[in-house]
Amino acid sequence: MSLVLPDEVDIREVGMRDGLQLEDPIPTSTKLELLDAIVDAGARRVEVTSFVSPKAVPALADADQVAAELGRWPGVRFSALVANTRGADRAVDAGVVNLEYVISASDAHSKANTGKTTAEATDAIGQIATRAHKAGGDVEVIVGVAWDCPFAGRTPPDRILQVVKAAVRAGADRLCLADTIGTTTPARLLSLLAEVGRACPGIEIGIHLHDTRGAGQANALAAVLAGVRQLDASVGGLGGCPFAPGASGNIATEELVYWLGESGVHTGLNLSGLHRAATIAENAVGHELPSSLHRALNRRST
Amino acid sequence: MSLVLPDEVDIREVGMRDGLQLEDPIPTSTKLELLDAIVDAGARRVEVTSFVSPKAVPALADADQVAAELGRWPGVRFSALVANTRGADRAVDAGVVNLEYVISASDAHSKANTGKTTAEATDAIGQIATRAHKAGGDVEVIVGVAWDCPFAGRTPPDRILQVVKAAVRAGADRLCLADTIGTTTPARLLSLLAEVGRACPGIEIGIHLHDTRGAGQANALAAVLAGVRQLDASVGGLGGCPFAPGASGNIATEELVYWLGESGVHTGLNLSGLHRAATIAENAVGHELPSSLHRALNRRST
Repeated sequence: MSLVLPDEVDIREVGMRDGLQLEDPIPTSTKLELLDAIVDAGARRVEVTSFVSPKAVPALADADQVAAELGRWPGVRFSALVANTRGADRAVDAGVVNLEYVISASDAHSKANTGKTTAEATDAIGQIATRAHKAGGDVEVIVGVAWDCPFAGRTPPDRILQVVKAAVRAGADRLCLADTIGTTTPARLLSLLAEVGRACPGIEIGIHLHDTRGAGQANALAAVLAGVRQLDASVGGLGGCPFAPGASGNIATEELVYWLGESGVHTGLNLSGLHRAATIAENAVGHELPSSLHRALNRRST
Repeated sequence: MSLVLPDEVDIREVGMRDGLQLEDPIPTSTKLELLDAIVDAGARRVEVTSFVSPKAVPALADADQVAAELGRWPGVRFSALVANTRGADRAVDAGVVNLEYVISASDAHSKANTGKTTAEATDAIGQIATRAHKAGGDVEVIVGVAWDCPFAGRTPPDRILQVVKAAVRAGADRLCLADTIGTTTPARLLSLLAEVGRACPGIEIGIHLHDTRGAGQANALAAVLAGVRQLDASVGGLGGCPFAPGASGNIATEELVYWLGESGVHTGLNLSGLHRAATIAENAVGHELPSSLHRALNRRST
């Protein structure tokens, strides 16, 4: 058997948002230094911040200041995460017109995050899509806790199908399935992906993975084999603090780039640049990052 | 696309050997406690030690004492690693009749480890196989640095083919390809696996992976998809000390069991037992183990 791998995979760097959101706030100037290194490493898609309540996520309270600087990197497609129409308005007003609207597929997680049920959050897609489209951008609907919820356990696939079908009807340009707590596995991932693909034919579906249980890169391989061409990842596996109970990072960008690249799949990103970016991130957050490859590169450079 | 996964995969626990060999020596009684926990977690194949020079590997200098205790666990298939005929004699005399004979596919690595070239080491297969077979056991030839060598760079596949063809001719019962320094990737893994399969039709081929660059579980998935049914792994990813330059562990048994099990593949191992075993190993070596899942289970149990 030989693996049928694609020529190219799009990696969206999410360390600036998902990676930093649970950390203590770092200076905006340091974030911009990190962003510059990420772009320098070849990133062409960056989820750069989220426009959410600064009380809920103090680490991203400087979203407007970060957004104001994005003109420095003209070749990059920037996007921001929003959790409601107010966030979408703020993002567009700040000049970030490509939006990720995240909807938790379990009511328990959705209410804990936004105070709304999944159905209530789903109702807002149309307004958010309209706002993005009017500004010349697009909107991706990310379905959170798509496999498991920390409060409600396994998420019934029907709940995801309701959200994605409504999203497509309401004008979403792209979908993304998020393994928010890092519990999915190759077979479960492909099963849901196939169901969503059947329910929403023709729309691009990305995958957002965390490496909480060590299956992140195996899941990424399964996704790519199944035709997924957009994966989220963060430099160094940022977001995962090995010393913080409950915290866990995205799959590490450099690990993904390593095995994809060595398998002949183009990502546009380079390892030395990612090592530099992860080092900036590591110094900024003040603790070791979980990426095995980052540690291996550190050993090689000492 | 759906993944065609098998009903069952054999995991050989190698933490007792590969996991401990670079650590400071731990008491034999602690090793036996770890082994008891590993068996209690469901392990039915355990590479329990190696019969090599105690000067070269002081951590496994108690191979004879460990071997003397194995009668305690009658349902388990134990094996030991050897690097020459003398080691094979010692193993068999100690009552361990199932042998793994490791041959480095690069002369540089082979000479550094055993003082012999790859060809010289290959010449000894027949004697070692005869010794094992006479004692009622079998012999697996493990090809080390099968993809990359820390001294010589990429290993030409022809060198592996020479070893495996000679191994089969000389009576090897099984083959194993070892990613000794944790550099391979899904496409490279499958390419070599296919070449070895063509050169040696009908013989079982196992895979031995390290997670140095974060691709270990993706490689394991690729191997299983390609028909591999024997994988080596160590509890907690033992062998990888994040603080020791150059060191890196095997893929973690519990991570492999997690995603295989949740994907419907039977391994016979259970996560709570593996968590207990990895905790014993972690306390014994005195530093954190690299397994993400082990840390996640630690968080859940606090």
